[in-house]
Amino acid sequence: AHSVDFPVSVVLPAGGTGERTGLQTPKQFCSVLGRPLISYTIQAFERVPWIQRIVVAVAKESTDLMADIIRRFRHQKVQVVSGGSTRHRSICNGVMALGEDGEGMAPDGPGVVIIHDAVRPFVEEEFLQKIATAAREHGAAGAIRPLVSTVIATTSEGFLDHSLERAKYRASEMPQGFSYDVIRQAYQRCSETDFEFGTECLHLALQYCGTNAKLIEGPPTLWKVTYRKDLAAAESVIKESLSESALVITGGRASAAALAEALQKAAGALQMGLDLVPDVTAENSRYLQTESNFIQVSINDPCLSEVEALIQALEEANPAPLHPLVVIWMRVVGEDEASDSGMVAPASALVDMASAAKLHQILLYGIQIHQSKDSERRDRSVTRAAQIVRVLIRERSPALVGQLLQA
Amino acid sequence: AHSVDFPVSVVLPAGGTGERTGLQTPKQFCSVLGRPLISYTIQAFERVPWIQRIVVAVAKESTDLMADIIRRFRHQKVQVVSGGSTRHRSICNGVMALGEDGEGMAPDGPGVVIIHDAVRPFVEEEFLQKIATAAREHGAAGAIRPLVSTVIATTSEGFLDHSLERAKYRASEMPQGFSYDVIRQAYQRCSETDFEFGTECLHLALQYCGTNAKLIEGPPTLWKVTYRKDLAAAESVIKESLSESALVITGGRASAAALAEALQKAAGALQMGLDLVPDVTAENSRYLQTESNFIQVSINDPCLSEVEALIQALEEANPAPLHPLVVIWMRVVGEDEASDSGMVAPASALVDMASAAKLHQILLYGIQIHQSKDSERRDRSVTRAAQIVRVLIRERSPALVGQLLQA
Ligand SMILES: [Mg+2]
Ligand SMILES: [Mg+2]
Repeated sequence: AHSVDFPVSVVLPAGGTGERTGLQTPKQFCSVLGRPLISYTIQAFERVPWIQRIVVAVAKESTDLMADIIRRFRHQKVQVVSGGSTRHRSICNGVMALGEDGEGMAPDGPGVVIIHDAVRPFVEEEFLQKIATAAREHGAAGAIRPLVSTVIATTSEGFLDHSLERAKYRASEMPQGFSYDVIRQAYQRCSETDFEFGTECLHLALQYCGTNAKLIEGPPTLWKVTYRKDLAAAESVIKESLSESALVITGGRASAAALAEALQKAAGALQMGLDLVPDVTAENSRYLQTESNFIQVSINDPCLSEVEALIQALEEANPAPLHPLVVIWMRVVGEDEASDSGMVAPASALVDMASAAKLHQILLYGIQIHQSKDSERRDRSVTRAAQIVRVLIRERSPALVGQLLQA
Repeated sequence: AHSVDFPVSVVLPAGGTGERTGLQTPKQFCSVLGRPLISYTIQAFERVPWIQRIVVAVAKESTDLMADIIRRFRHQKVQVVSGGSTRHRSICNGVMALGEDGEGMAPDGPGVVIIHDAVRPFVEEEFLQKIATAAREHGAAGAIRPLVSTVIATTSEGFLDHSLERAKYRASEMPQGFSYDVIRQAYQRCSETDFEFGTECLHLALQYCGTNAKLIEGPPTLWKVTYRKDLAAAESVIKESLSESALVITGGRASAAALAEALQKAAGALQMGLDLVPDVTAENSRYLQTESNFIQVSINDPCLSEVEALIQALEEANPAPLHPLVVIWMRVVGEDEASDSGMVAPASALVDMASAAKLHQILLYGIQIHQSKDSERRDRSVTRAAQIVRVLIRERSPALVGQLLQA
């Protein structure tokens, strides 16, 4: 795959009012794990090194909110412009803003402009590259998908007139790409009716510039958050991606390492990868910035000192994480130790520590596991611990922080 | 709203192979909370009193699975027929089966046949009535929705040819309804090409019977489970509907009733309705069959006898629940009682009881709440208890059964 060696910028129209979700908040600003949907979409573009600039067009009443999102989630490539009263007016404002100043761009403006929806957060670099390259070559390019439903024409009385042959048509999706000149000219030449009622940028490029867009079949991940149930689906996709792995800190002790290896095996059976490290100091301190999930194994330590040190190091290394981080204190108790002895103090200490950590976006949970000498019971405990780890990390429920769960 | 006073039957084609979900199981058989999607769809029809019969067309290799589903989820109106190699062949087999025997129908076959997708489980009676009534009046009727994407025609080289004016077209969705004669004749007259490549029953009715279907805009709840992320959305919708309310059993004691009322208020703020009952005996025993969520409040009772009795009554009243039921033991301990004293026995007893209950589809969790004399602390505890209740009932996580959580 050759790289993109021409300038590419992005316009994200985000002026919509979200009527269809049945929610009060416009859907691009709806929160998933404490972070607005649009921030995930912006991140999808910011992590692509060859994308220089992202212009977001938002309604006047959302300007402060958008500025707050840019600050909180540390977006670096974003410029905010005023949205228009329609989608096309918003996109047009974004396109014109790209032409206004040459900062960080080629002398004659950005080579290619990608237009995308703020509510399609799962777009990937590989597909963006296909669109940008085709737009560079053909003047315009757009994502298509097979039609999910048959399309029909209705009579004015509400009866079936005819149905379209499904194989001949496609759904036009986002992203789309344009050479800067094509999209600018299309907006300069199009009519008020286009601005008011048009929906399709590819159509403007064809009508006003004679550019037939190249159509490229996109992956199903291009889907758009449209209804309330789509927010649940987006949350599930995001949670899944955050819960694929965790880092187990063993403290370098053989007994903790043995337990961690057993846990690793049990978690693997649940499609969750665990990595083992003795500590997170020196060169391992890089893990503190990766927004991982952490499991601190403590052998017969009722006083929480190790997990306290971990949380402090996390807060220092990453004072404003992009999503709630999960820290699990896995307390291993010996068989001879009475299961609840000495737990009065740590139980309430765990609650207090979890309440404080929550203010720093760290979700702290405890799991107590018994080191039985009976190997069958030990295996059962480890299996149960892995299941609990999986559900705590997957759900990241704020309501359960500070709980000490029994494995 | 006048009722439906003519015979109505349903055909559900369910022979699909589920390529698009990226899952091994065909999507209509994918499990949501332990129950296959198609069972939810069948239930949506079975609870409509004026629907007589549901014919499900399944692939030969799924016949045993389907029989098992009918038995496990106690479906009463279902007849299984062999699916064909295409969607139209499956529907045709279902339609012909309805004509074969007059059992339970009008002498001349069912008046109206509703065709639906097995992967649209959230269809509601009100809309079914609209479709059935319009089909009776006009010979055919179908659900439509506005187009979510622009539809475009492509050239043979993969470029944009033209885009359709979105306002003039609609997406054809399910359910659709037909008078029996129309749909039977359409299938008797249509070609091999229609059987092989056609997608739209409404089109067959128009082409072969001259029937222009009445088109009715359907609600967004008609959406179809197509991709893997849609399964997460379906699970979320189903979990939401199962977690709107719970029954709190107070044992008739004033202190438990006072706590239950405080909990009711706190849960109300989380959009969860709690109903209070002293017990589930005599006339209240009807609640045992409603597949509710239950919260058993026990004051200073470390021995689990009340919740044990509740679980036993539930198992007897409802030996095969349609989804996992949630039972929460809410143990109230006084301030003077040391928080962990006497907990050794019940903690392991709770784990054992939960393991046994799980085999009967009952998910048992515990919450321990402290009755502080300090009103602020008491309020905080109740708020936390309500949050824990909400998340336990919402997520119904099997991995957390038997845990005693601290509120
Ligand atoms: Mg467009
Ligand atoms: Mg059809």
